[in-house]
Amino acid sequence: MKVKEGYYRTIWIKQGDKKTIQIIDQRSLPHEFIIKDLNTVDQVAEAIKDMYVRGAGLIGATAGYGMYIATLEALVSNSFDEHLNLAAKQLTATRPTAVNLAWAVDRQLKAIQKGNNNQEKVDIAYRTATEIADEDAEYCRKIGEFGLSLIEEIQLKKKGKRINILTHCNAGWLAFVDYGTATSPIYAAFDKGIDIHVWVDETRPRNQGARLTAWELYEHGVPHTVIPDNVGGHLMQHGQVDLVITGTDRTTYTGDVANKIGTYLKALSAKDNNVPFYVALPSSTFDWEMRDGCTDIPIEKRDENEVKYIQGLCDGEIKKVLLTPLESPAANYAFDVTPGRLVTGLITERGVCEANEKSILQLFPEHK
Amino acid sequence: MKVKEGYYRTIWIKQGDKKTIQIIDQRSLPHEFIIKDLNTVDQVAEAIKDMYVRGAGLIGATAGYGMYIATLEALVSNSFDEHLNLAAKQLTATRPTAVNLAWAVDRQLKAIQKGNNNQEKVDIAYRTATEIADEDAEYCRKIGEFGLSLIEEIQLKKKGKRINILTHCNAGWLAFVDYGTATSPIYAAFDKGIDIHVWVDETRPRNQGARLTAWELYEHGVPHTVIPDNVGGHLMQHGQVDLVITGTDRTTYTGDVANKIGTYLKALSAKDNNVPFYVALPSSTFDWEMRDGCTDIPIEKRDENEVKYIQGLCDGEIKKVLLTPLESPAANYAFDVTPGRLVTGLITERGVCEANEKSILQLFPEHK
Repeated sequence: MKVKEGYYRTIWIKQGDKKTIQIIDQRSLPHEFIIKDLNTVDQVAEAIKDMYVRGAGLIGATAGYGMYIATLEALVSNSFDEHLNLAAKQLTATRPTAVNLAWAVDRQLKAIQKGNNNQEKVDIAYRTATEIADEDAEYCRKIGEFGLSLIEEIQLKKKGKRINILTHCNAGWLAFVDYGTATSPIYAAFDKGIDIHVWVDETRPRNQGARLTAWELYEHGVPHTVIPDNVGGHLMQHGQVDLVITGTDRTTYTGDVANKIGTYLKALSAKDNNVPFYVALPSSTFDWEMRDGCTDIPIEKRDENEVKYIQGLCDGEIKKVLLTPLESPAANYAFDVTPGRLVTGLITERGVCEANEKSILQLFPEHK
Repeated sequence: MKVKEGYYRTIWIKQGDKKTIQIIDQRSLPHEFIIKDLNTVDQVAEAIKDMYVRGAGLIGATAGYGMYIATLEALVSNSFDEHLNLAAKQLTATRPTAVNLAWAVDRQLKAIQKGNNNQEKVDIAYRTATEIADEDAEYCRKIGEFGLSLIEEIQLKKKGKRINILTHCNAGWLAFVDYGTATSPIYAAFDKGIDIHVWVDETRPRNQGARLTAWELYEHGVPHTVIPDNVGGHLMQHGQVDLVITGTDRTTYTGDVANKIGTYLKALSAKDNNVPFYVALPSSTFDWEMRDGCTDIPIEKRDENEVKYIQGLCDGEIKKVLLTPLESPAANYAFDVTPGRLVTGLITERGVCEANEKSILQLFPEHK
């Protein structure tokens, strides 16, 4: 997507240097735009673990490229296979709950096995890393197409008046390789000239909305306004939201949606005000085993200091400030689960379905 | 209430110096506890306008004391009455939307008129200022008593297990003269030895929860945990909230509750999870004219920079940091309105009633 008149993905092979991966270092956004070179598996592991990169799709793609880097290192090691397996373990351990991470590493291992010699294995790893990234981008692009038709329906009803879309957290292109999930229909509509405006939930405590989604939209030129997470209900009560689109970290085949903490509150408010509430996801995010998301999806509890302290720009430097009494404890639940009954529909790379077992399995009959 | 083993109100006459008002300067809480002397009407006006003091009850009490200071100044001015009237205008203009401000100034003017000479007028102003403050504290204490019985009912049901109460914003003693409204039942229960724990919504964008409510509870020794505003829904889904109590800035006689932005989202979630949702208020907060709060209560839009920047403690200094892209606009709605249908009950100084016209007017028949 657009950044300062250029076009970027979140990860790519360096122009003219097939041995270097480049990423956008998301830790310093929105205040600084830093591109970082990754040349070793250690560097790739650090980039995932320390959240230079984050988001389901992008973590998977980074692990894919990391395994390609691993084959380059393996070429000059004592034992190709041993080095590769160690790298696979190292990468998988960086963020153990990220489903796409293990999936990308496994896909690489299976593909690489088919090579007849080490150089062929390197070539396969390169192709597979590119495939994983391209596939992620392509799925997101398709989600954008299907979501666009929902926005066009609203456009007809509003007779050309500005369409207001609310989103929570960052399910934008920064979380994937390109386009994003929740933002993909937004970019598609904007690029088609539809008059849209985005309410960006700041998304406490890590402020992915205020930091990342706002930055993405600003760089692409999409009209947007950052709001505290408390505001969405009021806006919906007053007809200021035509559509909510969020991403998801895991969605059960019955339609329960785990997403960034606070999503459930927006879904309740959308329901109370008859605002359509959609969730955008690639099919890899479905959990085909779990029936009851509200009781069974484990919710990560993170460090209380992510609530008590916040970082931002002060006199040109990024500083961290304390927000609470030093002695007050804080709780930091990363996700919540929105029951399917509150979700109007799911936007996938195969099309839109309702958030219930029957409709989901109609779209993905191979999981019946 | 308790601060560092002492007992404080938010405003008082200085010990041994009847010409000086003292307040807690709330701007530097929770990081510094500063007591400030106010000796002139200008200083009192500045304290209200620049939010050294805030909260309905405390603003009223401060204006009451300000009018007493005005009589002291008037004594040594050319024209007693002229000086007094100018001071009244100056104080009333500091925060024009605060109902209690004009009310306290008017009450003083009417009382002072009855004095037969200037010294008598000063004495009346002193007594009236004290009355206004004492009455505020007494109403809050009574709200605590009535709220306590609700908590004791829950205690019976939970058979002595810890009771979790969620509150939003600061309707604590810092917003009044003593006790607070939403917090008054909490302090009453805690002081009675009931095992309670408070979930403190940080309350973006001005973080009155994280800064003020958390500080109050910490100083008083009440177990509490600060949470991002996004978390309450998840906690209610998992049985971690037994009761919600908030304050209100204005409540219609039909039961619609204007309160800090985000209150509506918590009320929706309480309803969805069968958690009792109470609003605590002195009767002065009722609007006896307005029928439909959701359409008719005007909602203040404040400076976007309160969303884009936040202040906190950094290396021992209070610093302000930028949270969003510099160029992204932000919207800052200060309040929202929770329809009476979502409110379990109202806790007033006369007792508890339902949030509807019939029940409210039964408790306050003089407004029929």
